[in-house]
Amino acid sequence: MRLTPVAELSQRYTKLQQYMAEENLDAIFIVQNADLFYFTGTIQSGNLYIPAKGFPLYMVRKDFERARRESALQEIIAFGSMKDIPARLADYGHPEPQRIGLELDVLSVNFFERYRKIYPDAVFVDATPLIRRVRMIKTPYEIDLIKAAADQQQAVFDRAREVIREGITDLELAAELECTARKLGHQGHIRMRGFNSELFYAQIFSGADGAVPAYADTPLGGVGLNPSFGQSAGLKRIMRNEPIIVDFAGCAEGYLCDQTRVFAIGSLPDRLRKGYDDMLRIQEKMKRIAVSGTPWGSIYADCLDLATQMGHADNFMGAPGSQVSFIGHGLGIEIDEYPFIARGFDSMEMEEGMTFAFEPKLVYPGVGAIGIENTFHVSDSGVKQLTYYSEEITILP
Amino acid sequence: MRLTPVAELSQRYTKLQQYMAEENLDAIFIVQNADLFYFTGTIQSGNLYIPAKGFPLYMVRKDFERARRESALQEIIAFGSMKDIPARLADYGHPEPQRIGLELDVLSVNFFERYRKIYPDAVFVDATPLIRRVRMIKTPYEIDLIKAAADQQQAVFDRAREVIREGITDLELAAELECTARKLGHQGHIRMRGFNSELFYAQIFSGADGAVPAYADTPLGGVGLNPSFGQSAGLKRIMRNEPIIVDFAGCAEGYLCDQTRVFAIGSLPDRLRKGYDDMLRIQEKMKRIAVSGTPWGSIYADCLDLATQMGHADNFMGAPGSQVSFIGHGLGIEIDEYPFIARGFDSMEMEEGMTFAFEPKLVYPGVGAIGIENTFHVSDSGVKQLTYYSEEITILP
Repeated sequence: MRLTPVAELSQRYTKLQQYMAEENLDAIFIVQNADLFYFTGTIQSGNLYIPAKGFPLYMVRKDFERARRESALQEIIAFGSMKDIPARLADYGHPEPQRIGLELDVLSVNFFERYRKIYPDAVFVDATPLIRRVRMIKTPYEIDLIKAAADQQQAVFDRAREVIREGITDLELAAELECTARKLGHQGHIRMRGFNSELFYAQIFSGADGAVPAYADTPLGGVGLNPSFGQSAGLKRIMRNEPIIVDFAGCAEGYLCDQTRVFAIGSLPDRLRKGYDDMLRIQEKMKRIAVSGTPWGSIYADCLDLATQMGHADNFMGAPGSQVSFIGHGLGIEIDEYPFIARGFDSMEMEEGMTFAFEPKLVYPGVGAIGIENTFHVSDSGVKQLTYYSEEITILP
Repeated sequence: MRLTPVAELSQRYTKLQQYMAEENLDAIFIVQNADLFYFTGTIQSGNLYIPAKGFPLYMVRKDFERARRESALQEIIAFGSMKDIPARLADYGHPEPQRIGLELDVLSVNFFERYRKIYPDAVFVDATPLIRRVRMIKTPYEIDLIKAAADQQQAVFDRAREVIREGITDLELAAELECTARKLGHQGHIRMRGFNSELFYAQIFSGADGAVPAYADTPLGGVGLNPSFGQSAGLKRIMRNEPIIVDFAGCAEGYLCDQTRVFAIGSLPDRLRKGYDDMLRIQEKMKRIAVSGTPWGSIYADCLDLATQMGHADNFMGAPGSQVSFIGHGLGIEIDEYPFIARGFDSMEMEEGMTFAFEPKLVYPGVGAIGIENTFHVSDSGVKQLTYYSEEITILP
């Protein structure tokens, strides 16, 4: 178990304070779990107050003692009710904030009303874009944790080689891989920021089930087990000579990596093999262009162009009619972080320290899905790959 | 895989329309996954429009074909953007709504703003209390699914008997039980409504780890694996003569049950054995009083009184200083549904058809936790127990 060092935390809130100054924010209240973990090093129920200048104040309802043990922040106090916030802030010499940032993309309307009652005259601003910008640049400490998640995944994909056999269901394969990851310290729970976004470890499909679209904004979907979780592995039985795609999110100390590989028993049709090789070529192209300074949207557009030139327009990034408009996504504590390697994100650029998953995939209705996904890091010497399982299609006898 | 029958769906929205009439609501827009599943029988990205009278209109962005296949609703249409909503509603003869219900406890401020743009003159009301009231009364169809979840749990607790041995970690035990449930069709992902609420299958602890409080509003907490998921099973090794508590959420076709049992290798101290018997007595008391017509808060108060008379005031429902103010919670599609068997809920009463988990527990710092939890159903002939694993403490050699 690693505790986030104090130097990490101070670097993080200092950078947020720089962005706050640009937006003339007097303060940000942080309450969402992923953001709390990032800015405090723990997740305890409460409010983290980040003033325009000076030390953050973590007001903790439950559990105060754990906050003290797990967080390297200097100022941590117990508090009971939202109503006490102004008095507690005054105790610490903070003037009443006039322009307040809140996580308006995740804060519910009812929760927001409680802030409006406390500060009826304040102006409230969405602080999430600022928080996202801080979180999108990973430190070496964070990249090490993502590497640890990548190490964990080696065993998961090795286990897939052992488990896959004719006649087992996609669910059985998923259960075995989940169990492997879990025993290696995967926390199980994967955080996504988007409303209604849900991911349970992995998307694992054999054959045609890999081509069924679902509600999720992902290239693969799946029938799932039932309509209450109509995505991910279902009860289809694995057969010979069909693609088995394993898209798995590793997690170490709260940090995610994302990796996809293809397996098959027997062989695969030439069209799929060729498609897979083309996806590797798109990955190579991305590695050349996703350097510091490249707009996110242009990586998307260039790779989409290449897929189109290769003849994959109808099947790239989803079944025809269900294609998503991204090829990659930032990840760290949540699996939907900046950068978005997606259509239209032309004003934001790749920067050193970003980490992202890139996942060119082809989806053929009635046949299945193939593709590759790895997690990458933008370094001072170009794009570095963090996940490292063999990129050959694994053909089992 | 079961599809929700049309009779279920019409009963559900008709009841919601009755409550809407009492509140003078012209319409409710439903978008949250659990509510979508309840009112449509599937979860596809989109808006479900429930008018004051007449048929609901399910406007689906992704995936439309699956919505048609999985939902028994009559009126399902494809739509692309929130801006199109007024035109689509007009197509179906719905007048422009003036008083609109939204799920304001889960809808983010940013999402809410999109409705305000579409209907700048409308009054918006929190529809969640109405939705909760409809969802809290389960039909025989729903109770059958909860029973299926209870059946699934028999294998999980049997597996615990096989797996528990000296020296394995709580995490290893958790991983094995999760895998067992998963192979029996557990969807893995467990829905909770509360902001920041997170639950991964189970809370499984041996000895002192069972007494560590966490951020969650639950009697048990746990150190967890790391500060990014500082709850549930951690890396403590199971030893002889200490309580091993397994609190596991089963799930079948999206419906949950919740059950807790205690295991030990060797023996348990007399104080814990006596405490456990007292928790069984509190469960017996609850079964007598939790009948139709009893206020939720009075069940809580009476059982808390009994625990206090038994001498458990300091350890009941949490470690001293971290005690929660509930002993039970409704459950169905989410694990935090009505009724709340909790302090202060004195104006709402038990009703036939409610399902709830009841979980009297004792927590001793440095020692561990013991207790019992079962899932119940309020029937016309009193409280019926749906989970049914042996209530003896399992002593392993």
